[in-house]
Amino acid sequence: MTKIPYKIFLSEDELPKTWHNVRAVMKEKPDPFINPATLKPCTADDLRPVFCDELIEQELNTTDEFIEIPEGIRDFYKMYRPSPVVRAYNLERMLDTPAKIYYKFEGQNTSGSHKLNSAAAQVYYAKKQGLTHLTTETGAGQWGTALAMACAFYGIELTVYMVKVSAEQKPHRRAVIQTYGGKVIASPSETTEVGKKILAENPGCGGSLGCAISEAMEVALKTDNCRYVLGSVLNHVLVHQTIIGQEAKAALDKYGVTPDIIIGCAGGGSNLGGLISPFMADKIRGKNNIEFIAVEPASCPSLTRGKYAFDFGDTGKTTPLMRMYTLGSGFMPSPNHAGGLRYHGMSPIISKLYHDGYLTATSVEQTKVFDAATIFAKCEGTLPAPESSHAIRVAIDEALKCKETGEAKNILFGLTGTGYFDMTAYTAYHDGKMTDYITNEKEKQKGFDSLPKVDL
Amino acid sequence: MTKIPYKIFLSEDELPKTWHNVRAVMKEKPDPFINPATLKPCTADDLRPVFCDELIEQELNTTDEFIEIPEGIRDFYKMYRPSPVVRAYNLERMLDTPAKIYYKFEGQNTSGSHKLNSAAAQVYYAKKQGLTHLTTETGAGQWGTALAMACAFYGIELTVYMVKVSAEQKPHRRAVIQTYGGKVIASPSETTEVGKKILAENPGCGGSLGCAISEAMEVALKTDNCRYVLGSVLNHVLVHQTIIGQEAKAALDKYGVTPDIIIGCAGGGSNLGGLISPFMADKIRGKNNIEFIAVEPASCPSLTRGKYAFDFGDTGKTTPLMRMYTLGSGFMPSPNHAGGLRYHGMSPIISKLYHDGYLTATSVEQTKVFDAATIFAKCEGTLPAPESSHAIRVAIDEALKCKETGEAKNILFGLTGTGYFDMTAYTAYHDGKMTDYITNEKEKQKGFDSLPKVDL
Repeated sequence: MTKIPYKIFLSEDELPKTWHNVRAVMKEKPDPFINPATLKPCTADDLRPVFCDELIEQELNTTDEFIEIPEGIRDFYKMYRPSPVVRAYNLERMLDTPAKIYYKFEGQNTSGSHKLNSAAAQVYYAKKQGLTHLTTETGAGQWGTALAMACAFYGIELTVYMVKVSAEQKPHRRAVIQTYGGKVIASPSETTEVGKKILAENPGCGGSLGCAISEAMEVALKTDNCRYVLGSVLNHVLVHQTIIGQEAKAALDKYGVTPDIIIGCAGGGSNLGGLISPFMADKIRGKNNIEFIAVEPASCPSLTRGKYAFDFGDTGKTTPLMRMYTLGSGFMPSPNHAGGLRYHGMSPIISKLYHDGYLTATSVEQTKVFDAATIFAKCEGTLPAPESSHAIRVAIDEALKCKETGEAKNILFGLTGTGYFDMTAYTAYHDGKMTDYITNEKEKQKGFDSLPKVDL
Repeated sequence: MTKIPYKIFLSEDELPKTWHNVRAVMKEKPDPFINPATLKPCTADDLRPVFCDELIEQELNTTDEFIEIPEGIRDFYKMYRPSPVVRAYNLERMLDTPAKIYYKFEGQNTSGSHKLNSAAAQVYYAKKQGLTHLTTETGAGQWGTALAMACAFYGIELTVYMVKVSAEQKPHRRAVIQTYGGKVIASPSETTEVGKKILAENPGCGGSLGCAISEAMEVALKTDNCRYVLGSVLNHVLVHQTIIGQEAKAALDKYGVTPDIIIGCAGGGSNLGGLISPFMADKIRGKNNIEFIAVEPASCPSLTRGKYAFDFGDTGKTTPLMRMYTLGSGFMPSPNHAGGLRYHGMSPIISKLYHDGYLTATSVEQTKVFDAATIFAKCEGTLPAPESSHAIRVAIDEALKCKETGEAKNILFGLTGTGYFDMTAYTAYHDGKMTDYITNEKEKQKGFDSLPKVDL
């Protein structure tokens, strides 16, 4: 067999021309979104005041397996894609494992993550629709950065509600967004009704993704030519991220490699969904028996310890109801948790696949995540994002199991990004000041108490 | 003609197997280093207490045009190389220029720059020689990070003297070095005799590269199994960086493109030298007529306003004397200057080529550099390092000249790195708080007064 290079690159011509929509292949579809006012399934018209038209179409599309990527988006992708699949030869050697470890690396762009894949698409469609302004939320800041880059490129104004603790901990991430022309507001803020309400109840509130989403949505609704865009959870975002999985599959196919295990970190679920989508379609069709593993933080464990229920996507309870694994929109992750993956719910597609037994999930504690991150950085060169390091942790654990059993499994994981703006967390880890946190039953119950009491 | 892709990648097999040594082709060689004690040319034995043996050989080698890259270094390179040559289609469109702009992008590794190319080589040879410890200096922090990455990989202890103002302004860069296991000491420090002396004279001294070099060299000399390594200026460093130029040439050759202009930022000169080396050899042989442009900051203009003279490489006046363009080892760049390129001298190879008329040089002010950086970031996605943005500035200016003349010149520049750890400077620029600074005659004279009075 040809020796597999360290980095498998596809050529520009091999950049996928369509996104993949796994819903078309799923035997049972995820439940439709529910309008909380009518308790009826959401129509495109229900969503139109908030979202761009073409994104709504993608959101509701459960029938087309392939959705064309417009030339104007492919041109943007070509600036930083196709991204490589990397063979982690040095990590394998250090672990002394017979496993073969591959990672799809999405961090080689200034947003530092896969988020740019959906940002480019969403801004392109907004521009095409004649919009002039977008609002969004950002937590760790990767999504806000990605969106600012896309808005600078296509020429659209952007307001970013950034979770207050992140804005304070990461002034440099905020500065990147500003360099690309984005306006950053720390959330909760006095600029919205929902923000004022949250601050009135809890003046010291450090914010959450759910709360920033409420503020961004409110502004989108009351501003002309403006819509709200979201960086994860929603179906169309997951669809955009399938560029990752399709490239990974094409790259591995070149060398006849089929993964035995695919691992992804899971916050809102779009990266994981994007990575596994084409492989999952084949599994549903009975063409492979890949083990898919979602990895989430022990301090925000929506899949492993949440409920499969209809819930709001935001703290302000203004979104449609989505059936998903959720800790309740009132759940607040422990402030000691570093990095992203702080969302209370999980992509409805991932939730349904998990519910139907197509993928497994596990949760990990953050010091063990940073142990893995440091090992990886030293072996493979790249300093990983804390989020991505959840997947590294489990990839290492699986490779060590192979060492015990002697199995030469092919392990693929998603390295979603780099940790260059997360050095405060790395320093806390390095200085022995990072602590672990497992959500306790009381907090979990408080989150569950916030679930809507609906009978559908 | 085939359409040129956005990113021209070479395959792993196309990674150069040798470095290029332009001295072998130069009609007149750079002057040899002089031992300040004897005023005779330095021998390998003079250099052995400070530098690794194999690096000394490369340092003094003026005859072999090609120097083999050992397999153990090539394996390291394969983690992040070959790096792409990118066609700046979006920048061209925005400038509305007939020029074709290409850049060789060295920022896609965690050190954030080309520095890793020489770090890998130097640490590999140190390990091979049985050394256990290395010392170095770092200014903006790219070199320190690169060396920490290489030391973690090959298994060598590292102490980094980091220019005090940088260590304070860039705690995150320091944290990256620490994550890879490097020990960071702010310079000037109380850990060395030369540091104590500098602090006694000026307790508030914010440090300089020259001063950090003196401290790192002192420790290397008094520690067992320890040597000093330097990230620029020296001949062997420039030789290692020729991986950049060779890859760039091979990538452009694939599409039949010959640059008309090659532009690089110049601090110590190794990046510029590495980029132009193989092209320069052809120019010396009369095979091309490329215009080479070195770009330096107006606040540290060694080529454009320095003297071609024998000078020390460090403030403590402990290195051999090198004939180079220099502002004098006593020169201190203005503290308002952001980013690297703060060194008082210039690579002896680059200095000789400049002296003999093979390349031109220009200096630029920093707000104009950040104007260019921001334009580039918005068009091309990547947020550039302030250092690299000096080259972007001149590339944009040359492309705008082409717009006036209608010439479709091929412009190649070195994008040496990313600016993710330079957001303090970007914020100052964004907030209108960045000022320009042109070295004045009095400061320049003060630097010149520090030049050694030697008659050779």
